[in-house]
Amino acid sequence: MKIYFSCSIRGVRHDPETPQLLIDYLKGHGEVLTEHIGSISEELEAGISEVEIFKRDVAWLEETDVVIAEVTGPSLGVGYEIGIAETFEKPILCLYEETGKKISAMILGNEGLILRGYRELSEAYVYIDEFLNSYKPS
Amino acid sequence: MKIYFSCSIRGVRHDPETPQLLIDYLKGHGEVLTEHIGSISEELEAGISEVEIFKRDVAWLEETDVVIAEVTGPSLGVGYEIGIAETFEKPILCLYEETGKKISAMILGNEGLILRGYRELSEAYVYIDEFLNSYKPS
Repeated sequence: MKIYFSCSIRGVRHDPETPQLLIDYLKGHGEVLTEHIGSISEELEAGISEVEIFKRDVAWLEETDVVIAEVTGPSLGVGYEIGIAETFEKPILCLYEETGKKISAMILGNEGLILRGYRELSEAYVYIDEFLNSYKPS
Repeated sequence: MKIYFSCSIRGVRHDPETPQLLIDYLKGHGEVLTEHIGSISEELEAGISEVEIFKRDVAWLEETDVVIAEVTGPSLGVGYEIGIAETFEKPILCLYEETGKKISAMILGNEGLILRGYRELSEAYVYIDEFLNSYKPS
């Protein structure tokens, strides 16, 4: 199964460890197209132009089986990717840490998304399992 | 002309004055569907559910002639709205204050957007004029 994992890079990272831990977990379940974003980073992508990053990511969104987005922190890129993934009719799981801070109504109020709040990463892993089990490509 | 103005509400606002000033300027050029977001706020929308906000904003994005987004601060909602506006094939102007902080490659590398950096709001107003003049509905 191909998994597009989306999280804040240039926006606000709520917890810098979380993306890599989620990616490590997802790698046990399929091919994580965006696995480089866990270790961040602008540095790793220094040799690639903005247009190349954009085109690569949109191609991956078209190719992926499912999208899993970490939406705890505000991010233009994550919001954009969720919008585009919807037009490609991809199943989308949005995970957020329950910090008490409200996230965008464009996410919270969007009934097309599967939205799950977690307190511990172990809860997030359970939501990931449930999600991936329902969308296994046949 | 109908104008959908998008800016960070629950994300990070770079300068709290800017949205209202931009909205005031835009109101001289057309109907600003989202004019309430300048004065912020979650409070003003307290009586409306997340789902109602989402549906209203998506309906406005479908109805609008053009979209103008302030993208200086990270925001899930603004990113999502830009993605959806693209699928509705709306002309989109993204304005950002030149702070030296890099914004998302999903915006900077997206050749479907008109992207303009400004140092002073007076520059932003010039970009708005140019944009609206090119997309006047006939």
